[in-house]
Amino acid sequence: MKIKQILLANRPQGLPDANNFKTVETALPELMPGEVMVKPLYFSVDPYMRGRMNDAKSYIPPFQVGEPIESSGVAEVAESRDDRYQAGDKVMSSGPRPFLPWATAAIFTGDHLRKIDGSIPLTYYLGLLGVPGLTAYFGMADIGKPKAGETVVVSGAAGAVGIVVGQIAKIMGCRAVGIAGGSEKIKMLTDTFGFDAAIDYKGHSNIGAAIAAACPNGVDIYFDNVGGEISDAVIKHLNFFARVPLCGQIALYNTTEVPVGPRIQPLMVTRSVLMQGFIIGNYANRFGEGIKQLSEWVKAGKIKYTETVEEGFDHLPEALLGLFSGRNSGKMVVKV
Amino acid sequence: MKIKQILLANRPQGLPDANNFKTVETALPELMPGEVMVKPLYFSVDPYMRGRMNDAKSYIPPFQVGEPIESSGVAEVAESRDDRYQAGDKVMSSGPRPFLPWATAAIFTGDHLRKIDGSIPLTYYLGLLGVPGLTAYFGMADIGKPKAGETVVVSGAAGAVGIVVGQIAKIMGCRAVGIAGGSEKIKMLTDTFGFDAAIDYKGHSNIGAAIAAACPNGVDIYFDNVGGEISDAVIKHLNFFARVPLCGQIALYNTTEVPVGPRIQPLMVTRSVLMQGFIIGNYANRFGEGIKQLSEWVKAGKIKYTETVEEGFDHLPEALLGLFSGRNSGKMVVKV
Repeated sequence: MKIKQILLANRPQGLPDANNFKTVETALPELMPGEVMVKPLYFSVDPYMRGRMNDAKSYIPPFQVGEPIESSGVAEVAESRDDRYQAGDKVMSSGPRPFLPWATAAIFTGDHLRKIDGSIPLTYYLGLLGVPGLTAYFGMADIGKPKAGETVVVSGAAGAVGIVVGQIAKIMGCRAVGIAGGSEKIKMLTDTFGFDAAIDYKGHSNIGAAIAAACPNGVDIYFDNVGGEISDAVIKHLNFFARVPLCGQIALYNTTEVPVGPRIQPLMVTRSVLMQGFIIGNYANRFGEGIKQLSEWVKAGKIKYTETVEEGFDHLPEALLGLFSGRNSGKMVVKV
Repeated sequence: MKIKQILLANRPQGLPDANNFKTVETALPELMPGEVMVKPLYFSVDPYMRGRMNDAKSYIPPFQVGEPIESSGVAEVAESRDDRYQAGDKVMSSGPRPFLPWATAAIFTGDHLRKIDGSIPLTYYLGLLGVPGLTAYFGMADIGKPKAGETVVVSGAAGAVGIVVGQIAKIMGCRAVGIAGGSEKIKMLTDTFGFDAAIDYKGHSNIGAAIAAACPNGVDIYFDNVGGEISDAVIKHLNFFARVPLCGQIALYNTTEVPVGPRIQPLMVTRSVLMQGFIIGNYANRFGEGIKQLSEWVKAGKIKYTETVEEGFDHLPEALLGLFSGRNSGKMVVKV
């Protein structure tokens, strides 16, 4: 069967662009016993994928030049030679690398798939109940440890992780302050997602003053999705015993030089600050706990979710690149 | 009674010098009921005292211009109008600010003193069983959490905290690597204190290469006493799930500009690094545990200790300034 694949054409220097991707036609072989052919329904695109475009040692192996890009996705079984799966079943990859290749169809062994419940919105598996929602949950539950009355600041607040962080802060009785870019996002954070305050970093020449005004009692938890100068400004306002779950550094993903900034250690000593970098894979054996808690909050109407859905397999690279210009509100997914 | 006091004459800009101190003669009033007059036997001088010379909010109030400097010390009761104390008793201050003023005698209310056991070396109360030893103990026990087979790097390794950190690492079955300045200190770390390797930062043009050579399996715990470029070099070699107890940043204490350096957050995310600033006061309600464990190790011959003793009340400022040029090996104390 003929299929289309999107490959990594070459490695970007700095900001990636369309030339780093290449679409090719190829053919899938006949199915062998035990194999399943799936067709993707939705792909996730996520900031961490930028790191995989470099040839650098990290927590996931890099993409290979000339091989398909891969990302989290939800697929439908098209044809099965494994008795556990039938055409039409909704599935996700559950292998050691739980991704789908960017291809219009792919073959898996049945052991590397898992069925999902098709009665809830399928995109939730990529967002609220997937990596971003779980990232927010464990970053807060395990590192942030919010106590009622504290102030929680989250950067990248209008992103897939950020909107969940802010709502967990509210559930825990905290003041939730979001930082995002653009007046529409800011309005969404306070009006739709219940943040107490939101700061438009694009609209402020003095972000430090805006943070001080939004956080009259200082900052107890800074959930950092972005890094760079926004984080420099927040860190100055950390309280004694503040916690900083370090989740992403999107502001720095496209830098080619070693980024330089104010040293944070002196302040961390004098204010006894905890900073913990983490990746969601660290919590793999606790995903069940996170999914259960998030599902309960969703059913109780305590957490809302938003997505940006792009349409069309061919738009995958564009959607990924859009993350770096802040085109998305909430989780960015591509409907194939 | 006439006494001498050493006052803060003015606040330093950058590196302090002798002109920031002033010695004056004054008189003590008659003792009132409930009061005790003490004469200091030993004073401690410590790097954190530099911070108190600035007019900045921190975990201890700043020294006041025109008032005596104060530091930890061991004293002898000279005269007492509190039945609990008799002339000759060895005491330390146990008030809300547990310090002795830099004076040849001082008056305390009995409630703000505590007797100490004079049968063990008195200087141990300022070092191994005092703030530096407890700092090493809680930084390792509560943040570093060493596991057998791991590699522990400590900067400022020949200082009062560092020599204890390295020996705790060895007790826990870890590889202990110290960084210090000067060939004599390096030799002391390996020959006297049992470090597996020691790096002379003054003798290396490429400290990164020296760290790589001393830590073939990377760094699992970095106990940071110094900050600055030495820390930049160590941080590059941190392993996944590394822990960084942030204890001091002596390299930066005398800077007047906001210090700038390579951003550490991107590496902390990709390697899931924990960094925790702390001050020993955070563990005040657990001091008993630390003193008990350290005493047991000393009695079992598992921890040795070294001190640099300066002589003479008038040399107190000089001893404090000497910390910033690395004049001490182990704890620096002044015998009055």
